[in-house]
Amino acid sequence: MDSAPLAPARLLADLETPALLLDDARLQANLARMAQRMAALGVRLRPHVKTAKCLAVAQATDAANVAAGVPGAGECGPITVSTLREADQFAAAGWRDITYAVGLTPNKFAHLRRLLDAGVALTVILDSADAARALSAASAGWPTPVAVLIEIDTDGQRAGLRPDAPALLDVAAALTGPGVRLAGVLTHCGGAYHAHGADGLRALAEQERSGAVRAAERLRAAGFAAPVVSVGSTPTALFAEHLAGVTEVRAGVYVFMDLMMAALGVCRFDEIAASVLTSVIGHQPDRGWTLIDAGWMALSRDRGLAGEFTDQGLGLVCNAAGRPIGEGGAQGGGEWIVSAANQEHGIVTHRSGDPARRLDLPVGTLLRVLPNHACATAAQHPHYDRLGADGRVSGRWARFIGW
Amino acid sequence: MDSAPLAPARLLADLETPALLLDDARLQANLARMAQRMAALGVRLRPHVKTAKCLAVAQATDAANVAAGVPGAGECGPITVSTLREADQFAAAGWRDITYAVGLTPNKFAHLRRLLDAGVALTVILDSADAARALSAASAGWPTPVAVLIEIDTDGQRAGLRPDAPALLDVAAALTGPGVRLAGVLTHCGGAYHAHGADGLRALAEQERSGAVRAAERLRAAGFAAPVVSVGSTPTALFAEHLAGVTEVRAGVYVFMDLMMAALGVCRFDEIAASVLTSVIGHQPDRGWTLIDAGWMALSRDRGLAGEFTDQGLGLVCNAAGRPIGEGGAQGGGEWIVSAANQEHGIVTHRSGDPARRLDLPVGTLLRVLPNHACATAAQHPHYDRLGADGRVSGRWARFIGW
Repeated sequence: MDSAPLAPARLLADLETPALLLDDARLQANLARMAQRMAALGVRLRPHVKTAKCLAVAQATDAANVAAGVPGAGECGPITVSTLREADQFAAAGWRDITYAVGLTPNKFAHLRRLLDAGVALTVILDSADAARALSAASAGWPTPVAVLIEIDTDGQRAGLRPDAPALLDVAAALTGPGVRLAGVLTHCGGAYHAHGADGLRALAEQERSGAVRAAERLRAAGFAAPVVSVGSTPTALFAEHLAGVTEVRAGVYVFMDLMMAALGVCRFDEIAASVLTSVIGHQPDRGWTLIDAGWMALSRDRGLAGEFTDQGLGLVCNAAGRPIGEGGAQGGGEWIVSAANQEHGIVTHRSGDPARRLDLPVGTLLRVLPNHACATAAQHPHYDRLGADGRVSGRWARFIGW
Repeated sequence: MDSAPLAPARLLADLETPALLLDDARLQANLARMAQRMAALGVRLRPHVKTAKCLAVAQATDAANVAAGVPGAGECGPITVSTLREADQFAAAGWRDITYAVGLTPNKFAHLRRLLDAGVALTVILDSADAARALSAASAGWPTPVAVLIEIDTDGQRAGLRPDAPALLDVAAALTGPGVRLAGVLTHCGGAYHAHGADGLRALAEQERSGAVRAAERLRAAGFAAPVVSVGSTPTALFAEHLAGVTEVRAGVYVFMDLMMAALGVCRFDEIAASVLTSVIGHQPDRGWTLIDAGWMALSRDRGLAGEFTDQGLGLVCNAAGRPIGEGGAQGGGEWIVSAANQEHGIVTHRSGDPARRLDLPVGTLLRVLPNHACATAAQHPHYDRLGADGRVSGRWARFIGW
């Protein structure tokens, strides 16, 4: 009595809403764009699978990287994960070169060991001598060493040591014993999500690159091995002018793109591959409201860059073909947004908030909502319904959740 | 190579973080409190399973309702669902009396039929003559009729017709044919989430009750059958002084409670049963930041009632025993909040934002974060780790996602 199996090549009108759509052609174009950029820069790409959490998307990514000639690309190529659940899932499906890019805690050490024992070439990150000592002690008896990158903070946004921090050498020195192997440095310049314009993005990309390289050079000058210099985010990867000294780039959201990337000028609205299919379920004409069956459960509550760029509410409303409805504001892209939501109800209003304007469509009308943040919206869904160029749904790809 | 199975009676320190904890004793107390209130008011309780999405929590709820003598309670008692996936899961496990409390769309009609064919006594809601006509037409050939409640808007917050709306009788009249049966009215006064103080909550509860009863009386006066008057939310259920004319109450979040309910005065902090166990993964001393391994993926991005009551960030930080750390502000309850988050990183700061104050705890220290909105936080997790009175984890309950 579960949902009926999805027959091939169904119409959108045959889906139950809400549903997470993944546009095949846009996905392929996004994968090719990044792969071609990395091939041109001559740098290895280690895609971050946290965005899609989907084996099939990772397979498509590998294929695009091979096709473009990205250095080191191949079947089951290198990946970045945000959870050890992702590492488990990908390792079980054949991926072997996995970097877990969140600071470690001792309660994950046994899980790291299980991954190593299963044949995974595992890289982890940390940014303190305490963490380095704890991992060194715990791993002393492990049969295979775990590679360690020291996390570098190149934007003041999150974790890591500043490139010039004296503690950098202390952390390196605290990695001792047969179970750990210092491999280099890693940074993520999330500050690029707040850059205005292409010049700003290029500057942040250079800040990320130069900071990571500087940290690696300090380690090498002090006699430590630091072969790996790992940088990346979707905006910096696509806007970096050169990546001298960088050995690999990590990026995640580029596979889908989203309204944040559009706000930054990294993509166009019509390059966003993930959207939520929803239906009109009612109206409150006095308030200018159109109610839809996509609430925060289907959209997430991510507000994207609402405080810094155009406020897209909880998502930008498109017609069933995926085109934003209306003329839009300064950045173009439509007049209607999901301005509020309950768990399974979204409230669509005009961008202006004017209650005299209402999206007056019959109950049952299909709409699509573009996500502020594709990682967050996709995380609410158990699968992707794949949308083909013919406007039909060609199949379903599973995704997973949890840690 | 998946996560190792959880042995019974493990210590919190043996869990991998982040993890969603469910405090058994608090859950039981919350279930008993609502059950006793409903028994005292003499009204049937139809718990909303959207909060927990967990068969075991629903079983515990049924048991509490039976123990308190709630009218109509029993094994696999009446439930409310927010998705047809919930209906599927509960029907497969034996629940039969199910109300789907989100406005209908035609793309769900085939699914409704499957549920009816499986023996579910199904109730749905709608608030327009268009939807009533569409369902009447689609259901004409169904062997079992579906019960229909007309949704009433008693607070101007979401869907439904005003109790005095002329269209109410049009909707009732549009329900025709053998496949549909008008059963009454349903309302949810979400406005109670913005009430200040017990008097405000009592007033909203009365507004919800009287509006729903008024709508049902109008239907009856016009010759329509309207035996069911369904109302509810956790705050109105617990603060209603009487429920004359109401036949059933729906409530969901009471099973766990959360910071929103605490802000409204509906519960105390130490009655919140769900929390996210997390570990310190690092520090940025210059900024007063403590980094934890619970980001928005583990906490959700729900900001709760930050604009109206004390801002709890993305959650209130407690020690591993679940007690808020520090003295707290005007409403009490701790000095430390998760003030920002990335996907798998949370940033804990002092409530004041003062960078000179920092929660200086070693990497690996366990903390617990109380959720702004338990429905949203629980939705990010695949299971609950059950926390016993001895401080040990006694087992794991699965939850499900999707539509």
